[in-house]
Amino acid sequence: MHPEKWLSDTAKGTRASDIRELLKLTARPDMISFAGGLPDPLLFPVAEYQQAMDKVMSTYGRQALQYSTTEGLPQLREALVAQLAGEGVECPDGIENIILTTGSQQALELLGKIFINKGDTVLIEAPSYLGAIQAFSLREPHYAPVEMDGQGLDVDLLAEKVAELKREGRHPKFLYTVPTFQNPAGVSLSIERRKALVELAEREDFLIIEDDPYGRLRFRGENLPPLKSLDRSGRVLSLRTFSKTLAPGLRTGYVVGHPEFLRRLAILKQSADLCSPALTQYIIQEMLQNGSMERYILEVIKSYGHKETVMAEALRKHQAATGAKWNEPEGGMFFWLQLPKGLDASTLLFQALEVGVAYVKGSAFYTDAEGGRDCVRLSFSQPTVSQIERGVERLASIIQAARQVGAVK
Amino acid sequence: MHPEKWLSDTAKGTRASDIRELLKLTARPDMISFAGGLPDPLLFPVAEYQQAMDKVMSTYGRQALQYSTTEGLPQLREALVAQLAGEGVECPDGIENIILTTGSQQALELLGKIFINKGDTVLIEAPSYLGAIQAFSLREPHYAPVEMDGQGLDVDLLAEKVAELKREGRHPKFLYTVPTFQNPAGVSLSIERRKALVELAEREDFLIIEDDPYGRLRFRGENLPPLKSLDRSGRVLSLRTFSKTLAPGLRTGYVVGHPEFLRRLAILKQSADLCSPALTQYIIQEMLQNGSMERYILEVIKSYGHKETVMAEALRKHQAATGAKWNEPEGGMFFWLQLPKGLDASTLLFQALEVGVAYVKGSAFYTDAEGGRDCVRLSFSQPTVSQIERGVERLASIIQAARQVGAVK
Repeated sequence: MHPEKWLSDTAKGTRASDIRELLKLTARPDMISFAGGLPDPLLFPVAEYQQAMDKVMSTYGRQALQYSTTEGLPQLREALVAQLAGEGVECPDGIENIILTTGSQQALELLGKIFINKGDTVLIEAPSYLGAIQAFSLREPHYAPVEMDGQGLDVDLLAEKVAELKREGRHPKFLYTVPTFQNPAGVSLSIERRKALVELAEREDFLIIEDDPYGRLRFRGENLPPLKSLDRSGRVLSLRTFSKTLAPGLRTGYVVGHPEFLRRLAILKQSADLCSPALTQYIIQEMLQNGSMERYILEVIKSYGHKETVMAEALRKHQAATGAKWNEPEGGMFFWLQLPKGLDASTLLFQALEVGVAYVKGSAFYTDAEGGRDCVRLSFSQPTVSQIERGVERLASIIQAARQVGAVK
Repeated sequence: MHPEKWLSDTAKGTRASDIRELLKLTARPDMISFAGGLPDPLLFPVAEYQQAMDKVMSTYGRQALQYSTTEGLPQLREALVAQLAGEGVECPDGIENIILTTGSQQALELLGKIFINKGDTVLIEAPSYLGAIQAFSLREPHYAPVEMDGQGLDVDLLAEKVAELKREGRHPKFLYTVPTFQNPAGVSLSIERRKALVELAEREDFLIIEDDPYGRLRFRGENLPPLKSLDRSGRVLSLRTFSKTLAPGLRTGYVVGHPEFLRRLAILKQSADLCSPALTQYIIQEMLQNGSMERYILEVIKSYGHKETVMAEALRKHQAATGAKWNEPEGGMFFWLQLPKGLDASTLLFQALEVGVAYVKGSAFYTDAEGGRDCVRLSFSQPTVSQIERGVERLASIIQAARQVGAVK
């Protein structure tokens, strides 16, 4: 039996994510990991979950253990409609504007399925979230990457890109963007650019998929309006998740958007997993309604905000040694370091792992083979404050050494 | 904004499942539903789940709320390896032979993805599980349906079909089969045919996807060996689920198979939902280890076995009126009725719903437009004994009326 010969082209075309492989390497107890974008499990309010589960079982036990509807628990979707209204996001069709998914990763794959035909043009930030790239790539789109700066996606560059595509006879289907505390770049799209982006999408007639896992995790600065709140024609689909505001182990996200799109998503979700677990949906509803979720978010903001400050200080302290540049994030979980030209984050990673520090190499977040080679993503959510200090020091030492070798050559 | 114009060909090609639409109709409280294949929620051991959750949170709270590995909780996979050994299913690579999925529905979609290129030939039982048809159809295979009888899939017919395909230059990639208490036909593949099937697959070199959600729910008769237990070369992939042996709301299934196939499944599962909920995996492990699962299965067998007897009696009582034929199932959840020639189960369904009884029309389980028009699937797991008696009576009355109209014409 030769397993390879049975595989579809899709299966042959896939490769394991670097992050996943890395997570296996970093299971070593002495490793300081800035790699995975994992919440700090020490902050999970375990006792509150325990009480919530007890209540869910006492009150809705049989329903929570049965199949749920494909679209998700109506009462949870109602609670989300109310919450979204508080952010300026209207749901004119009520719960028909919301579908729950098995993590927002499932939403990404389903959106790829309902929109992308092979060869369709997808506008994407460079760099971008690698889970989205993985999911969309199954549909074999033509990616049109657009650069960012400290204010997020450069909307003027985007307009130029769209014009250029037009000259090539290409009409983009959608832009995929993480406008707030971007993964991996850590930056947020300014309010002026948000308005300009939605106007551009109207004018040039493309959809926007707004992925917003980190928006609630703001340590400093002013809240920015979700793109969905600026949408007047139903062309923005907004992706949310409870992975960062409650817990990833619940695997629950949701999409806010036009009911006609969500109807198609629901049909494809049926094939994907019939429905998300009813149990976790009931738990989320309870944690949301009894205030546990808001209390947890405040704890997270306090803790990650402090860790971000510590990482920023450590990076500044070693800046002369590393020669790195970065934009300091006002929320979320990531620093994105631009290393001096000529350094290869992929080669450096082996040396980093040897001295006991892990990161994700920048190239993992690009759709082309060239981008991000001299960049690294550092996550500060899970390591402790002292691990952050020691980890940045270890990282600085190998970067400094690599720069010296480079200078000798 | 015209939502239709944005859709991919995949999205345009999908349609909502009849069962799903039906489930909405049957939400009426006076309706007796033989439609959905849902477990009886009254049997769920809610208090035992409550205790299990309490223990999981006390013991593994932080891990249960964090991301898990894509392949699933190692200790649960170890427990499953041990359990499978008891059924004669060897896992030569240990837990590498098992991957957990978000329901076995996810396994079906992932298997479609790793094996099927557009136009590839897939052998399938006629009728077959419609969730599998939905999932595989996304990949646009060429279906080669093979008829069944009271002993399950007719393996001689299958051999002829394979020979016929060969003459057309087609080599099937795999056979999808539900060998035990088939959904929808209720029949089980005899032991002789199991052996012949695995030998045929060896000789003609195709894979077997064995879907076994109901195997543990046997009311009468002898256990039959899983096809996987007869597999010597790694060409059988076995799908299991906890939906029928614990609860569907946990959305957890698993695939047993060659590690090279599972490695590809894991990569595609990453794109699909990163990982299944860690929480439900820990709950399952606890319910499995503390004996709750085995106790529940015994309760289910007792209850469904009684309901099956009641439905069989009711069907026999009204047989003269309906003229229907069926094979009595020895386990599982379904009766499959063959109505007299000329009756259309699709037209009848509207009349059935009017008199307050629901079923799934046979054509939903066929890959072609013609099959199963005069067949209906009746599920006996969820209705009460008195609902079963009244429901069959209602059904008999409209079938009898339709036959009389037919006679008048």
